[in-house]
Amino acid sequence: MVRLVPLFLAFWAILGFSTSWAKISEATETCLSCHESVTPGIVADWKKSVHAQILPGDILSKKYNVQVPKKFAGVVVGCAECHTQNHGAHKDTFDHNGFKVHKVVTPRDCATCHPHEVAQYQKNKMSHAYNNLLGNPVYHGLVEASLGPQSFKEGKLIYEKTSNLTKADACLHCHGTKVEVKGKVVRDTDFGEMEFVDLAGWPNNGVGRINPDGSMGSCTSCHPRHGFSIEVARKPYTCSECHKGPDVPGYKVYMVSKHGNIFSSKNHEWNFKPNNWTVGKDFTAPTCAACHISQLVDADGNIIVKRTHQMNDRLAWRIFGLIYAHPQPKDPDTTKIKNKAGLPLPTELTGEPVEGYLISKEEMAKRRATMKKVCLACHAEDWVEGHFAKLDKSIETTNKQTLAATLILLEAWNAGVAKGLPSSIFDEAIEKMWVEQWLFYANSTRYASAMAGADYGAFANGRWYLNKNLQQMLDWLGFLKAAKKAQ
Amino acid sequence: MVRLVPLFLAFWAILGFSTSWAKISEATETCLSCHESVTPGIVADWKKSVHAQILPGDILSKKYNVQVPKKFAGVVVGCAECHTQNHGAHKDTFDHNGFKVHKVVTPRDCATCHPHEVAQYQKNKMSHAYNNLLGNPVYHGLVEASLGPQSFKEGKLIYEKTSNLTKADACLHCHGTKVEVKGKVVRDTDFGEMEFVDLAGWPNNGVGRINPDGSMGSCTSCHPRHGFSIEVARKPYTCSECHKGPDVPGYKVYMVSKHGNIFSSKNHEWNFKPNNWTVGKDFTAPTCAACHISQLVDADGNIIVKRTHQMNDRLAWRIFGLIYAHPQPKDPDTTKIKNKAGLPLPTELTGEPVEGYLISKEEMAKRRATMKKVCLACHAEDWVEGHFAKLDKSIETTNKQTLAATLILLEAWNAGVAKGLPSSIFDEAIEKMWVEQWLFYANSTRYASAMAGADYGAFANGRWYLNKNLQQMLDWLGFLKAAKKAQ
Amino acid sequence: MVRLVPLFLAFWAILGFSTSWAKISEATETCLSCHESVTPGIVADWKKSVHAQILPGDILSKKYNVQVPKKFAGVVVGCAECHTQNHGAHKDTFDHNGFKVHKVVTPRDCATCHPHEVAQYQKNKMSHAYNNLLGNPVYHGLVEASLGPQSFKEGKLIYEKTSNLTKADACLHCHGTKVEVKGKVVRDTDFGEMEFVDLAGWPNNGVGRINPDGSMGSCTSCHPRHGFSIEVARKPYTCSECHKGPDVPGYKVYMVSKHGNIFSSKNHEWNFKPNNWTVGKDFTAPTCAACHISQLVDADGNIIVKRTHQMNDRLAWRIFGLIYAHPQPKDPDTTKIKNKAGLPLPTELTGEPVEGYLISKEEMAKRRATMKKVCLACHAEDWVEGHFAKLDKSIETTNKQTLAATLILLEAWNAGVAKGLPSSIFDEAIEKMWVEQWLFYANSTRYASAMAGADYGAFANGRWYLNKNLQQMLDWLGFLKAAKKAQ
Repeated sequence: MVRLVPLFLAFWAILGFSTSWAKISEATETCLSCHESVTPGIVADWKKSVHAQILPGDILSKKYNVQVPKKFAGVVVGCAECHTQNHGAHKDTFDHNGFKVHKVVTPRDCATCHPHEVAQYQKNKMSHAYNNLLGNPVYHGLVEASLGPQSFKEGKLIYEKTSNLTKADACLHCHGTKVEVKGKVVRDTDFGEMEFVDLAGWPNNGVGRINPDGSMGSCTSCHPRHGFSIEVARKPYTCSECHKGPDVPGYKVYMVSKHGNIFSSKNHEWNFKPNNWTVGKDFTAPTCAACHISQLVDADGNIIVKRTHQMNDRLAWRIFGLIYAHPQPKDPDTTKIKNKAGLPLPTELTGEPVEGYLISKEEMAKRRATMKKVCLACHAEDWVEGHFAKLDKSIETTNKQTLAATLILLEAWNAGVAKGLPSSIFDEAIEKMWVEQWLFYANSTRYASAMAGADYGAFANGRWYLNKNLQQMLDWLGFLKAAKKAQ
Repeated sequence: MVRLVPLFLAFWAILGFSTSWAKISEATETCLSCHESVTPGIVADWKKSVHAQILPGDILSKKYNVQVPKKFAGVVVGCAECHTQNHGAHKDTFDHNGFKVHKVVTPRDCATCHPHEVAQYQKNKMSHAYNNLLGNPVYHGLVEASLGPQSFKEGKLIYEKTSNLTKADACLHCHGTKVEVKGKVVRDTDFGEMEFVDLAGWPNNGVGRINPDGSMGSCTSCHPRHGFSIEVARKPYTCSECHKGPDVPGYKVYMVSKHGNIFSSKNHEWNFKPNNWTVGKDFTAPTCAACHISQLVDADGNIIVKRTHQMNDRLAWRIFGLIYAHPQPKDPDTTKIKNKAGLPLPTELTGEPVEGYLISKEEMAKRRATMKKVCLACHAEDWVEGHFAKLDKSIETTNKQTLAATLILLEAWNAGVAKGLPSSIFDEAIEKMWVEQWLFYANSTRYASAMAGADYGAFANGRWYLNKNLQQMLDWLGFLKAAKKAQ
Repeated sequence: MVRLVPLFLAFWAILGFSTSWAKISEATETCLSCHESVTPGIVADWKKSVHAQILPGDILSKKYNVQVPKKFAGVVVGCAECHTQNHGAHKDTFDHNGFKVHKVVTPRDCATCHPHEVAQYQKNKMSHAYNNLLGNPVYHGLVEASLGPQSFKEGKLIYEKTSNLTKADACLHCHGTKVEVKGKVVRDTDFGEMEFVDLAGWPNNGVGRINPDGSMGSCTSCHPRHGFSIEVARKPYTCSECHKGPDVPGYKVYMVSKHGNIFSSKNHEWNFKPNNWTVGKDFTAPTCAACHISQLVDADGNIIVKRTHQMNDRLAWRIFGLIYAHPQPKDPDTTKIKNKAGLPLPTELTGEPVEGYLISKEEMAKRRATMKKVCLACHAEDWVEGHFAKLDKSIETTNKQTLAATLILLEAWNAGVAKGLPSSIFDEAIEKMWVEQWLFYANSTRYASAMAGADYGAFANGRWYLNKNLQQMLDWLGFLKAAKKAQ
């Protein structure tokens, strides 16, 4: 029942690890004996992966000071190593051909071999993305008013409660669902009737998924199954799954930046695989990962920046998702924040940052200094300073443009042509125009400034729209008043 | 006059066919003798193609049970083999250096060697795309109101009749033009004056092109001249020519799905050429072709799904292009359909599907089961079921959101602030807002659900816009009423 | 201090030049001795470049009849060769480790070895892009009304003066900034305190940058630092930095054209490096560069079109950026143009081209004939004629649609519900709707026609929006009148 696979990955040999034969565990062999025919695609994908070709024990202890459990010594990382890991903690564990198997492999499972990455990721707002959205009453309201559906009755539009399926199909696709065990289900299979665990909120690979073992997050969001490729995670396409929309256009901005142009033209010659990623040699323009996550080194192997899975480690400002740009929150759980009006928001409705919950100026300076190290690997100091001067001005002016929109909205509420708090502040037409001011146009403009993709700060959802939207909101307010009078 | 070319394509050798020397026909040699200098680009492109390098006779008879005409035995497929094929049927045939040549190579010509593919394609709605658009009075009205132009006279906007050139430059670029012989034309060439046939509706490669031999469609839509590459047809870029716009955003949705992310990151390692496309080995995430067209096999060569050129063979629902999502029509000619109001539409204006013209629940289940086979090559049963549960909910809620918009429009017609039937239902501002509800936002949302590209069901032309558009339509209706009163 | 690098570029050997060892100048060695550790990324990038691997003297004199200065004989083109070039003319020159160094390498510097390209580029409107925008009072007004910011006070929106940082971050990112010396600045470095020149308008790589040596333009816009790769310049990604937005969607249109589809699918097999780019052999579908810039040859080496860096050499019409499409201007400095109303515009507000400043019909025919040579390398004459017939119709109808919008705007001005000249004609909501008619929708439609990317002439910012926008403008005009009456 034991099979040997050759360790043929050239880059691995280069790193100096032995090229002996790796062993598949007996348990994984059992999985493979059926799944090679049942789900041939993922088995073939796994076989090409590093997981299928190396013995993790040696490398992890030598290079990363991580001790893997004894049962993993001498075997590659296969089906059983992950899907039977920590089975006691997993509510989704079920009996399957004599094994205690769970469907949802979680960050806690991955932490067996990758504890540093998982620990960093827990400090990442992304791991809290489920609750930061649905556990915040203001934002939960935005979800409902964004997704609907509405029906039209007796001259009025009525929002219906958004179903869980719809939430899972939209916001929670990226934010993550809560995966819960509904019960058991029996299915006909090629091997006769079999019983499986039945899950709600499944399938989902969102970054802040609430898992059946109580952990948060999903490593496969960026390291997709079952190749777990560092190449995939380092290419910007992966980030585009959740960072391309008008509310968070990082990918689109990157692609029109000079960095993105060079990536698209030259990445066929780059090497995406070394853990220590050498600037200039392995790649000649940064990807998303280079600036935000990867460990970068110079040609002599000196570390330029250390790897982090806490994505805001190199970020001073939070430029998207909230009404006004503001310093990064101290805690990844943002539901704790309360502003003076009692709302769970990091700024007042008129833009002032909420004290106590956001990082200090010193911490902001430290994070920007870290990011600058990446820039300075290719650019001179004044180039980098000139770049950030434009970003700071962009944060200032986009916040100002959002404030102007907020003041128009306040006038609409005061004039009684729209209903403000405590009713939803996101459900009427003029409120939705206000939302687009910050959620689309201000965000887009700041992204363009942050990443030098100027189009998105000009005519592509940028400053053109900030200014046009204000003029249209003011006209719309006038039309609403006239229509009210005419009734 | 006979030249031999080496059969050097490695993958072809692997398939076990002889690597002897292929012969170019005398007729094609004659074509090449001038066209190598007159149109060097396409000649060079053809030389790299499979057509230029294999003798089709053997392979087609052995593998596909197709007998090619004797005159093609022993020669590669060159200029003359296609451009003089079936010349009697071609109204665009003209005398050219002693040959009866036609410009427009058609599916009927291709059927000489590829009869199965062409027969399937004739059952495809795409082959009927010209008449399904222009032969349907409702849709013809949408074309005119979409393309214009309009002029402004005495305070009123007036639609002018859309010219054939404009139609060919817009809708018919993809739907296909009617290519007709206008007459003859004499041109100065490098070889002196020559007479050519003169065509209307040319150039065009639309999927439902009406050809001068009476056939419908254009194989080069997806297998572009003169490489006829299966690699090109299997890459999603090809589909993007007609499936990227807001009305039909398949390509954009795919690209933000995890499938698209993986394709973009890893396709440089994939093999796009085998007819039997092996899941996991040849590719590790599906492209458009993998789900909708290609023959997929597992590592042992067992067929997972059979190749089809009837694109809705694996599709239960028709999710785009019409006012409400509905079961696929039985017949690819959709002009035959009549709803209760007498309109050539597959649903009533209020959404109920029209009985008799659409596939049954059993047929829907059968088609979805076929599609699921593709999914199940990598995913477990409950993963796949969970996916389709979200799609079904999305179809239900987007139809509901379209109904709400329709009811607002009906109120506008009733209130006399917009003109409904029998006048155009697409020409006024509030009518165009209604069109966008289903043609852009409901379609986009359903695509996002169908292909797991969630952004397009959220803020990128998705549910956000469905809800905002409803609120804006209702306000707009109020403004129209107030403006009417103020006059 | 002298190092030798091997000349290993295969394609270079093929071109027949000697593969001896190239010498790095002593000055450049000095630069590298620090910058290999200070800015490792660009040093590594440069080392892979042709500049780092060839002796330019021989090639330039033999093939291009260019004599490089004696001091460059026998050395590769390194840091010092560019950054100390013409230092007397450079206001940004400063003392740096015993060298007179300038930061901003300019077209005048590049002209030392590439005089033909620079001379052509000076006739290119792109080199005048700074002043053509900011030196034209009408267009300067569009910049201010597009960028803002605005504030809301006492029921009114007020435009603030746009800061230089904001302009540099948006319009001037592509158009180019004016780079000026502000003074000196002392910085802490790894090598102790050092003094540098301090620049305003920096960083910037815009196409019309005003440089500290008085020259205009930036070669690195398309040949980015420090690889200066012809491959990068020939791939469409590079053009997308400035030609992807809704005002100038060339890249997006290309990507949905059949040309773009084929590029995306097959460019991994193409050769982007030969100066003489062979149609069909090196590439099988054109990129931006193929149609607009590169020297194309047939398989026998016959020139099809000559290389040009005056981008409108093959263009009859100017289809974007101005209110109406019109013949190309004669002079790249478009601020000289005055229409009958005294405005610096190439057409009247009602569309008639301004005589005397635009190229003649003969010149238009000549330029189109040049472009057609590119098309005819793959397509037959009638294919090409049919294509251009659609473009001409598109220019006619989009100008008509713009005129209709202008007439509605004139009525708004006449009715006193919007302020026209001499006030800004770009600052109010209905004026911005008018701007989008020509700047977004008419431009997009014409691009789609010019490059056969039909989606952008239909539903993706194309004719659908031209017609919808007109209907909405007319309704909006009615709402403005009603709101005025209601006050």
